[in-house]
Amino acid sequence: MIHPQLSVVGAGPGDPELITLKAIKTIASAKVILYDALVNEALLMYASPTTELIFVGKRKGCYAYQQEQINELIVNRALKYGHVVRLKGGDPFIFGRGAEELEYVQPFGIAAHVVPGISSSSAVPAYQGIPLTKRGASESFWVITGTTKTHHISGDIALAAQSTATVVILMGMGKLSEIVQVFSQAGQSETAIAVIANGTRPRRKSGYRVDKNY
Amino acid sequence: MIHPQLSVVGAGPGDPELITLKAIKTIASAKVILYDALVNEALLMYASPTTELIFVGKRKGCYAYQQEQINELIVNRALKYGHVVRLKGGDPFIFGRGAEELEYVQPFGIAAHVVPGISSSSAVPAYQGIPLTKRGASESFWVITGTTKTHHISGDIALAAQSTATVVILMGMGKLSEIVQVFSQAGQSETAIAVIANGTRPRRKSGYRVDKNY
Repeated sequence: MIHPQLSVVGAGPGDPELITLKAIKTIASAKVILYDALVNEALLMYASPTTELIFVGKRKGCYAYQQEQINELIVNRALKYGHVVRLKGGDPFIFGRGAEELEYVQPFGIAAHVVPGISSSSAVPAYQGIPLTKRGASESFWVITGTTKTHHISGDIALAAQSTATVVILMGMGKLSEIVQVFSQAGQSETAIAVIANGTRPRRKSGYRVDKNY
Repeated sequence: MIHPQLSVVGAGPGDPELITLKAIKTIASAKVILYDALVNEALLMYASPTTELIFVGKRKGCYAYQQEQINELIVNRALKYGHVVRLKGGDPFIFGRGAEELEYVQPFGIAAHVVPGISSSSAVPAYQGIPLTKRGASESFWVITGTTKTHHISGDIALAAQSTATVVILMGMGKLSEIVQVFSQAGQSETAIAVIANGTRPRRKSGYRVDKNY
């Protein structure tokens, strides 16, 4: 008897030791794992040797799955084999589209739940010694995507520039000059910024930093 | 030869399986562990039987350590015994005062680093099925403390009420009516809110929810 089930699991920000015990146990019980390009492949060692591993990320020279195809794969495999794990970089509910996949499977009678992961939005600054909050300096932090569905810069960035929040912008490299302009116009041209790539992974491309002076 | 060292470690949001492998390894190598009230004590089983365990949290009927005393304890124990772990609920750099402790120990020649943890700010909504971001609905999330150093409501809350962000307010119960007022004045009186207590722990006090209709 097959019990169709979907676990949407956060794999953490890159460092393979920044995964939770719950995520490891969930990976170990999977019949099928669908994983993204941002997932450290070292984590697949926790899977059973008989688990089907499907790479659904975007990578140069590879076939790129559309979200609709991923949704259909999840349903198909869960109904046929039981426990499907959808393994995503960071936290599935922070720019991970995890909610869309959970909602998609509901009408098919597939039990679904989420296993939170360490988000790059907090871990990457932490690895550089940058706290997201600090008594007397920052009472809040705001995590924003630089690239929205409409490909425009998010209007929230202008509000963030007026706040005391530590502002974390993910996927912002393509909009860096626009973002800097928004902060300058809000009188924050002296505010320190850090630009970080490959924050907790062994470096393949270069990670670099404009300033760190909080 | 003693190598004085401080690891500021995130214990996660309560569920003992939401701790990272790195945190477990760090706990296992500690000579002394100073832990808070928000840390699930089940996690102390990863410590060596010879590790000194010091509870420095606030609990009714117990002596309450001041931050200065905790700082001094860390330095004293690290210089005497080597590796001190400061174990904190959630993530040490998200309202955890982890940065203050890291800074305090620097002049004493104590090597210090941080191990990120799963923050309640993302895990607790996730356990209720609430994603912090969702394509087309919310392009950002903003985490704010309800209780600032000056005991006033943070001015950032008024800016957050104007944004499209999913707003997460920690330690906000004492200011709940003020917070609701700020959002109402910003025209958000119809916005759904969730009030969650003991989000990922077995319930001791009652957790409750006003609404969940995102």
